[in-house]
This record gives sequence, C-alpha cells and structure tokens, in this order.
Amino acid sequence: MAKSTAPDGPDGDDDSRPPRVVALGGGHGLYASLSALRRVTTDVTAIVTVADDGGSSGRLRRELGVLPPGDLRMALAALCGDDEWGHTWTQVLQHRFRSEGELHGHAVGNLLIVALWELLGDSVAGLDWVGQLLGAHGRVLPMSSAPLEISAEVEGVDPERPYELTTVRGQVACASTSGRVRSISLLPEEPPASPQAVKAVREADWVVFGPGSWFTSVLPHLLVPDLAHALVTTRAKRLVALNLSPQKGETDDFRPETYLEVLREHAPKLGVDVVLADTGTVEDPLPLEAVVGELGGRLELAELSMGDGGPRHDPDLFATALERILVD
Amino acid sequence: MAKSTAPDGPDGDDDSRPPRVVALGGGHGLYASLSALRRVTTDVTAIVTVADDGGSSGRLRRELGVLPPGDLRMALAALCGDDEWGHTWTQVLQHRFRSEGELHGHAVGNLLIVALWELLGDSVAGLDWVGQLLGAHGRVLPMSSAPLEISAEVEGVDPERPYELTTVRGQVACASTSGRVRSISLLPEEPPASPQAVKAVREADWVVFGPGSWFTSVLPHLLVPDLAHALVTTRAKRLVALNLSPQKGETDDFRPETYLEVLREHAPKLGVDVVLADTGTVEDPLPLEAVVGELGGRLELAELSMGDGGPRHDPDLFATALERILVD
Repeated sequence: MAKSTAPDGPDGDDDSRPPRVVALGGGHGLYASLSALRRVTTDVTAIVTVADDGGSSGRLRRELGVLPPGDLRMALAALCGDDEWGHTWTQVLQHRFRSEGELHGHAVGNLLIVALWELLGDSVAGLDWVGQLLGAHGRVLPMSSAPLEISAEVEGVDPERPYELTTVRGQVACASTSGRVRSISLLPEEPPASPQAVKAVREADWVVFGPGSWFTSVLPHLLVPDLAHALVTTRAKRLVALNLSPQKGETDDFRPETYLEVLREHAPKLGVDVVLADTGTVEDPLPLEAVVGELGGRLELAELSMGDGGPRHDPDLFATALERILVD
Repeated sequence: MAKSTAPDGPDGDDDSRPPRVVALGGGHGLYASLSALRRVTTDVTAIVTVADDGGSSGRLRRELGVLPPGDLRMALAALCGDDEWGHTWTQVLQHRFRSEGELHGHAVGNLLIVALWELLGDSVAGLDWVGQLLGAHGRVLPMSSAPLEISAEVEGVDPERPYELTTVRGQVACASTSGRVRSISLLPEEPPASPQAVKAVREADWVVFGPGSWFTSVLPHLLVPDLAHALVTTRAKRLVALNLSPQKGETDDFRPETYLEVLREHAPKLGVDVVLADTGTVEDPLPLEAVVGELGGRLELAELSMGDGGPRHDPDLFATALERILVD
C-alpha cells in the first residue's frame, strides 16, 4: 500500500505535471513550508531531521531505541487530508495526554508511529501507513534510518570568556544554548541516509531548504553523506527560505546573509538557485544579494509574515511566493 | 460518520435481512463470541463491560479518569476488516509496548481510543471512529458511560473459615480470588446505561450472553438498571453460551448448570431461549436440562472446543453452532 512517489525518473519529464518538490527541515519550520507547498503542488516529499532529543520524542527514543517521531508526525499533520476523516485523525495524532502520570506530554501520533515501526520493522513503511491514514498530500521520510545526535561548537557559553568554543551535545542543548552556535556535526559522524530520501532528491524539480531552526533542523541534512551528495548533484533547483526572525540562542545575532554563510560553511559545494526572504526582515538587501550572487542564485523578496510580529510564515502569502518561483 | 445500526425499529421486520445480534461480555470470551458471530451475520453489536481495573486499562482509568478501554479494544479487534488495511490497523491496536520504562505494557489501541475520547468528549463516537478505521464488521459499545467497579461477595477467602463471606473490590481482585465468588454488585450501584446499548438490545433479534469470566464480564450487564430492563423486556431471543471450563477463582467449582443458577440469582426475571454448551463439558445433561427448562429454554449441545484441551472456543465450530440456532 505504500504511497509511491511518481516513478518517471529523470527522463520522464512532462511539462503538464505538477512540480516535484522536496522540502527539508524539521519541527515548526517544516510545518510552515509544507503547509504552503501543499497549495502549490500535489507532489511534495518532506525529508525530516531525526536528531530531536527533547519532549515526547526524546523520551521515546530513550525508552524504545527508535527514531524520534515528533518532527515526522508534525510533517504528516501539515500534509493531512482536507476532509473530516483527515482532519479528525490529524487531531488525534497531534493530541497530547495531560496528566500527573506517566503519559503526560506524549503526543498520540508519536506513539502510533512508533508502534508501526515496531510492528513493521521499517521506518518508511510505518510513515507511509500513517500518511495513508491521514490521506496525506505527499510523503514524509526520515533523513536517516538511524537516530542521530547533534553536536555543536558554541562560542561564549561562559559570558566571561566570550570567544571560547565549547562543544554542546544534543538538539535541546544546542537549540537553547546561551552562546552563539558556530557549527554543528552529527553523531554518529557519517550516518546512513534514507535511500528513499536520496531518491526523492535525485528525482525532484525543486529542493526547498528551511525555514526552521537553522543549525538543528535545516543544516543536519547536509551532514548525512549520501543525502548531501544527492543535494549537491541533483538536477533539481534549490531554494532557500530564510527565517523571519533570529532564534534565541541558535541564531541570535544573525543577519539575513548569515544564514547563507553558515549554509555554505557546512556544504561548500552546494549551489543555490533562489533565496526567498521576507521583505520586512531585510533592511538592507545589498549584502544579502552579494552572498546570494556568490552562491549562483537570485534573491526573491516577498511579504511572508503573519503580520502579528511573530516569526510565523502566513501559509497563503508563503504559498503565493513559492508558486511564483516554482511554477513557471 | 458514525456507523449506524440498522434503523428499521421493531416494526421494520424483513425476513431477508441478516439477524440483528447483540453480544454481551468482555475480554477473551467476548472476543470468541464476536469472532464466531461475524461469520453468522453482518449485523453485530457488542456491549462491553467497563469495570476492568488491571493492566493497561487500569493504569489509564487511574491516570486519566476514563473508561477502561481494553475490553472495548479487543471487541473491535475481533470485528476488524478482512483486508490488509483492517488487519494492519488491528495489529497496531493490539500492539503492546515492551520496555523498561513508563510505556511498558500499554496497548496502542487503548491509547488511541482514550485519545479519541478526550478529543471528541463522547465514548461512543470515539469507538465508532476506531471501528471505521478497522473497517469493523459491527459496532462496539460500552455498557455504561461511567467507569465502574465490581464488588464481590466471596466465600472462603480465609481457608480456615470456609463459609465466611468477604467483600472483595475490583475486577482483578474478584477474578483472582482464592475463595468462591457468590455474587457481585457494581459501584456506583445504579450506573447509567449507554443509551445506544439499550437501543441495540431493544432492536435485536438475538442477545448472546457469554462465554467469558462469568462474574466479571457476563453478569455486570444485568446490574446496570436500564440495560437490565431492556434485556428482560426485549422481544429478542436470548442465548446463553456456557464456558468450556471453570475459571480458577471465579468459577472454580462450577457445574454447567451453576452458570445458569448464578445468572438467575442476578436477574430473576430474565428468560432464556437457548443455552449452548460444549458436548465435552457436559458429563450429565439432565441437571443442566432441568435448569434450562426452568428458565423457559432449550439446551443445544455441540462440539465447540479448539480440541487442545484449553478453554478456547473454535471460531468455526462456534459459528456453525450459532448459525444453526440464530439463522432459521
């Protein structure tokens, strides 16, 4: 029953078909890009980080030795079917138990995904089953078949030694550090890519990086060797969607162009075709345009924010901007 | 989307339609009767005890204040769809986490049912959604909308005082007592019946009691006033399926006719049309026939056992026997 991605292959081009889009990320950022992309194309594949060690996901990976399911669950929820069936099962997946006891904080979808993994012994097949349950408009894949740990080089953890580098381990610790993250690496160092994720990148028309926690959700994909190779060599075009505001800790002092500089440091060979940024977050486009140009791409500015001052993308505005770029 | 039972009502008879059967019980006994009944008719409704306080169900009712879901889950599993979809989701429902941690022992279906209850605020609607997920061949209802506690009068708990009565509280304690259970009652004493269960009994052609843990799964329905009234007054015929072997503790010293004597003590006005017993368990049919006759019914003997010496009904043999009785 596994939902298959379109099997045309690189030579099966057909101008009338919808663009085949792969979205990379994790957590709320990926939820935002998928919520927009599902309005632009019927052919979306999400490739999701599997390094989360916090909350319900962290407890499940420690207790049962599985991939952290939370970001995968959120990606599936973002792609859920439009009818009462899809909406209800998505609400069930997103429901969290609240109690004084052992289930407190667990998201039901996390438990369901893990049960399918234990039952089927195959992380991709398990996610496909949940996708079928939701009537998902696309496919959700883990970036690696192994649970990963993020390790970060962080500057100024000790305020009295602002230029000293400290190694911080674990996604929660990296995302909430009081210092400035300078680079990340993965443990184990050369993790196995999900073969289906590599195939999706090779067969895509567009690959979309971000938005999202830059170091802990967007960059990790580039540190999985086979996936990084596919991302660098695919004939797909590459779009980078910048965040609307810096994230405390991880990207505190980031200017818009800093996201791209960090991306280049982690994947020097990666070309970029389009960088999409929110008009309101780019005070001076010149330095950003300069870095975009060095990467071989062009800058697209658009109103993308919910307009409430928060860091969230408006799904309609984001979709409109993506459609202008992706469907031409 | 709720699956509705056939709405003809008492006057909508139609000889060509399948018999409308209500099965009462809980746990493995109800699983056995449903596994057989689904082969006999397409119109099955299970009415399930909600007094379990052990295992995953007991933990969930204590932690979250919900109905114990386990027996409801097993009844749904017994009615699951025949295709890969139905079988896979049933396996997911029946899957239990095994670990050294907080999830150990929880059945995934219990968590899913409870999540739907919390989300929809309606126990019957939640079960209907799970039934739809499984493509269930029938409907599963709780006997009461409130979680119940079983209290038993038990003789000889203390071996030195074999005729002394002790009150034992809780399903697990009652089912595993070393004494002889003489009678049960429910706490709260007059619990609310599930209106859908009452309606199903009123509109049934047949009501099937047992097999199953006699005191803790079969008799409790007769102690819910509105449900008991419906069971006594319905124009449906009543079939009692006896157990294949006594259950340690609960029914240690039971002869076949003892099940019926206990049933009569708990519901003196209840008529019985047919008593179905396994040939191999009835050494002398005369005393059994006498009690069946006093209840106004007839005795049917058939080979029902799996033939492995265990207490389990063979679904095919059980279905054949039920079909002969129910479809005439």
